[in-house]
Amino acid sequence: MDVATRLAEDMFVPCAARSDIVEPELKDGAVHVLPEIAAALRQYTELGLFSASFDESLGGLGLSALVCSALYAQFAAANISAAGYPMLSNANARVIAAFGTQAQIDSFARPGIEGRWYGTMCLSEPQAGSSLGDIRTRAVKDGEDALGLRFRLTGNKMWISGGDQDISENIVHLVLAKEPGPDGALIEGTAGISLFIVPKILPDGTRNDVTIAGLNHKMGYRGVPNCLVNFGEAGGAVGWRLGEAGYGLKYMFQMMNEARIAVGTGAAALAYRGYMHALRYAGERLQGRRIGERSGNPVPIIAHADVRAMLLRQKVYAEGALALCFYCADLADAHGDMALQDLLGLLTPVAKSWPSEFGLIANDLAIQVHGGYGYTRDFEVERLWRDNRLNPIHEGTTGIQAQDLLGRKLLRSDGRALQLLRARVEDTARRVGAVAPLAEHGAALLGIFDDIDETLAALAKADPVGAFDNATWFLRAFGHAVVAWLWLDIAILATGGVDDDFRRGKLKACRFFFESELPQARAWLQIVNSESSAHSEMAPSEF
Amino acid sequence: MDVATRLAEDMFVPCAARSDIVEPELKDGAVHVLPEIAAALRQYTELGLFSASFDESLGGLGLSALVCSALYAQFAAANISAAGYPMLSNANARVIAAFGTQAQIDSFARPGIEGRWYGTMCLSEPQAGSSLGDIRTRAVKDGEDALGLRFRLTGNKMWISGGDQDISENIVHLVLAKEPGPDGALIEGTAGISLFIVPKILPDGTRNDVTIAGLNHKMGYRGVPNCLVNFGEAGGAVGWRLGEAGYGLKYMFQMMNEARIAVGTGAAALAYRGYMHALRYAGERLQGRRIGERSGNPVPIIAHADVRAMLLRQKVYAEGALALCFYCADLADAHGDMALQDLLGLLTPVAKSWPSEFGLIANDLAIQVHGGYGYTRDFEVERLWRDNRLNPIHEGTTGIQAQDLLGRKLLRSDGRALQLLRARVEDTARRVGAVAPLAEHGAALLGIFDDIDETLAALAKADPVGAFDNATWFLRAFGHAVVAWLWLDIAILATGGVDDDFRRGKLKACRFFFESELPQARAWLQIVNSESSAHSEMAPSEF
Repeated sequence: MDVATRLAEDMFVPCAARSDIVEPELKDGAVHVLPEIAAALRQYTELGLFSASFDESLGGLGLSALVCSALYAQFAAANISAAGYPMLSNANARVIAAFGTQAQIDSFARPGIEGRWYGTMCLSEPQAGSSLGDIRTRAVKDGEDALGLRFRLTGNKMWISGGDQDISENIVHLVLAKEPGPDGALIEGTAGISLFIVPKILPDGTRNDVTIAGLNHKMGYRGVPNCLVNFGEAGGAVGWRLGEAGYGLKYMFQMMNEARIAVGTGAAALAYRGYMHALRYAGERLQGRRIGERSGNPVPIIAHADVRAMLLRQKVYAEGALALCFYCADLADAHGDMALQDLLGLLTPVAKSWPSEFGLIANDLAIQVHGGYGYTRDFEVERLWRDNRLNPIHEGTTGIQAQDLLGRKLLRSDGRALQLLRARVEDTARRVGAVAPLAEHGAALLGIFDDIDETLAALAKADPVGAFDNATWFLRAFGHAVVAWLWLDIAILATGGVDDDFRRGKLKACRFFFESELPQARAWLQIVNSESSAHSEMAPSEF
Repeated sequence: MDVATRLAEDMFVPCAARSDIVEPELKDGAVHVLPEIAAALRQYTELGLFSASFDESLGGLGLSALVCSALYAQFAAANISAAGYPMLSNANARVIAAFGTQAQIDSFARPGIEGRWYGTMCLSEPQAGSSLGDIRTRAVKDGEDALGLRFRLTGNKMWISGGDQDISENIVHLVLAKEPGPDGALIEGTAGISLFIVPKILPDGTRNDVTIAGLNHKMGYRGVPNCLVNFGEAGGAVGWRLGEAGYGLKYMFQMMNEARIAVGTGAAALAYRGYMHALRYAGERLQGRRIGERSGNPVPIIAHADVRAMLLRQKVYAEGALALCFYCADLADAHGDMALQDLLGLLTPVAKSWPSEFGLIANDLAIQVHGGYGYTRDFEVERLWRDNRLNPIHEGTTGIQAQDLLGRKLLRSDGRALQLLRARVEDTARRVGAVAPLAEHGAALLGIFDDIDETLAALAKADPVGAFDNATWFLRAFGHAVVAWLWLDIAILATGGVDDDFRRGKLKACRFFFESELPQARAWLQIVNSESSAHSEMAPSEF
């Protein structure tokens, strides 16, 4: 962790502002990235961080997901774009390592684990953003070799982060595509989708038929090129199928789920960094007097209640989001325990969306604490806010996470994951003891989970379409309930040991969350419970 | 209105994106603005719009504040930066016209009303952002001439929008400064502050001692230069005092209050434009199927409940904010009625902050409706969001509006403005009739105003410092209550006449506001009522 902190500060922070100005450039078909990012990542790789999360048998350090998540948070806070390359590449190599043949692992995963090759995930297409059943990229059989069944791919992918760059020696694209049926037509829906390994440079050293058709110019997160990638413009890109036919989405979702938690962790890290900036500024900036005082010297703005409230909201959002993501990482480490993996599945849409939504609010508050300065490009908080705005969108929007949580993970599940969560919540509530305010918080925590149960029971009986009318409010409320639980757990820890600033701060933050955030969560549940449907009854012409 | 719409579309919209890229530039001491903005404003002036809000006796069109507010909304939606020049210049000329001598009006207000000269407001200083008692700009008497008492000003002002530009022939700075006491020292606090007219070019055609020390580089709102202006680097800028000594803040607050409502109107207009973009995109973009359907063609995303909810939230925020600002403009038109001016005073912090806060959320939702496209600079919604982010900051942050509302306008007032508001709310509630859902909304509306009264009664008895601990939540809840009232008023209007899309849309929007927004307002009041104080008890070292 110390090495990571130093590296993040020495090499990731300095180029973050510059990579916001000097965007990746597409020239003569190749994408060029700010050289300082490449230099930072070389150092990152040399220190063994690229392979840190992999088993020693694969050449990694075998660090736990929890530790790797904390490492990632450091780098994401320092430079979310630069941190994105290893994050995606690691997840890519892990899919190949999990589902590939030994030859595929040796040829495509190992160079990725070593950090010599980077990886992408190619899902979306211009006509099919999040609706993957509608993809039209076609994979036609082209024989078989030592690397497995060989295919020729043709199709256009978009929103491909790191779709090309000049940092790594090669790029391994994992491409969702459809194998045509016997009649040559693509099968409708998601069933016919397989996953293919499509390297930029083929094992024989020649260029594959992969072209960068253009870059998207983003509001933030600019150090990573976002590419339109065309496969097979010259007849067909060579790719090898990973695993079985028709299992493409299943395999890809391992990568997606890992990326979703990483998105949440990144959003939390950006929120935390903004909070640190706001905290420092609020302690230094002199402005105004305390209420009721009219003379004397100006006070640091942290003396003002409104500024403190803005800081404490940032703290509960940023630290709460980090706690949530680290909790998920810890569950991921228990990969043999299916019940815990189900719990992880339940929490994944929350870990993706809650930090993204509330981390963005934290960054907004960091700007507000800075006043006019926060709106200028001389202060990092404005960039953090722009960077963080991507997080509620990529790897599944908040709306999609809400559908996933309420549908697949709750209403259409066997309910055991929620029971397990509930048991853990009750355990926390038992451990609060009888002393205020924690005892009251424990009761409030059980109360909000009771409300959630009632809401779910009502939704289960409701019209199955209408049940999703307010899914996003449900996700928000559920997220707040989960984070309230984590804050109470933290507060219990903070009551033991020395009575220092750190622990007093955690206790007040917990109290703040229960006093100022939980009432809002109840209101959001109330919106769900009222089955408010004005929006779904609204004809398009009535808007 | 038709002329304004055409002009806004033909000349204000086309340069909005470009002025975001080609920022104002400071070269050899002068600020250069995108020429297309100057051309748009020339056309605006030629059509008589610059002087539209002034009395015919001053060479204006004598249009009401309400009509001018609706005109401003058009231009602000089209290009918030370009619209800023006449907005500030008009408010500046109005202050001079209200408090200046005839000679001052003829020399400084009239050219401003004609649109030949532009105006600024110079309040903040590097050490005194919002704390105006701490300004150190000094104004020393330097004789008297036909334009009044003449002074020499020295001091540094910052955040000066349009502090220099190459559009108008001259710039009239209205500068807050202190006249030193007999001992030569500045008087502490706000009492000694006067207001001075400091033109860039003096009546004899020579340059005044006013220097542009630098520009701030903003995240958005980039078509207006934001300047650091130094007065008196070469011995003292010549200025004439406006009105009486020591009344500077009082005079300036006429301009400030006008600007605050204009900020709200601009924020509402940006929200509305984002909404229009999102609505069009949601009707065109095909993606996914309806819940429960697995085959068939993709549907426009407006078919999805979550997208509709995001659109309807934008509608209730944008149209609600416009209704609020237009209501305030209508009150401003009744300038002879002191009771209505008090009501305007009560609503001003709401009209400034509610559109700024919720308009920004609307723009965030407009991005979200666009998905990944909304995060790219090819779609206007990302710029609208960045532009709108200034509005919760300038002309008094949201926190400052909250202090103003709860303190000066409520707890420290005679309460008559709130009584008048309450009477109008009750009148609306009476007019809803007995039919659901409006009848229920009427009861809910009275309920939230009862809650507000109870909250205020409790706060009046509370510790006078602690009463402000959650002032910002109070402002938010109060704003929601006021906008709920306006939505109900709109719904009552919509129940009469033809049953068309427009009216049905308004009715559903009203219902949506009561079902999905009002529960949140109740939660915010609950936070205030719980006297949540964890943040104010937090020592700086505990954060």
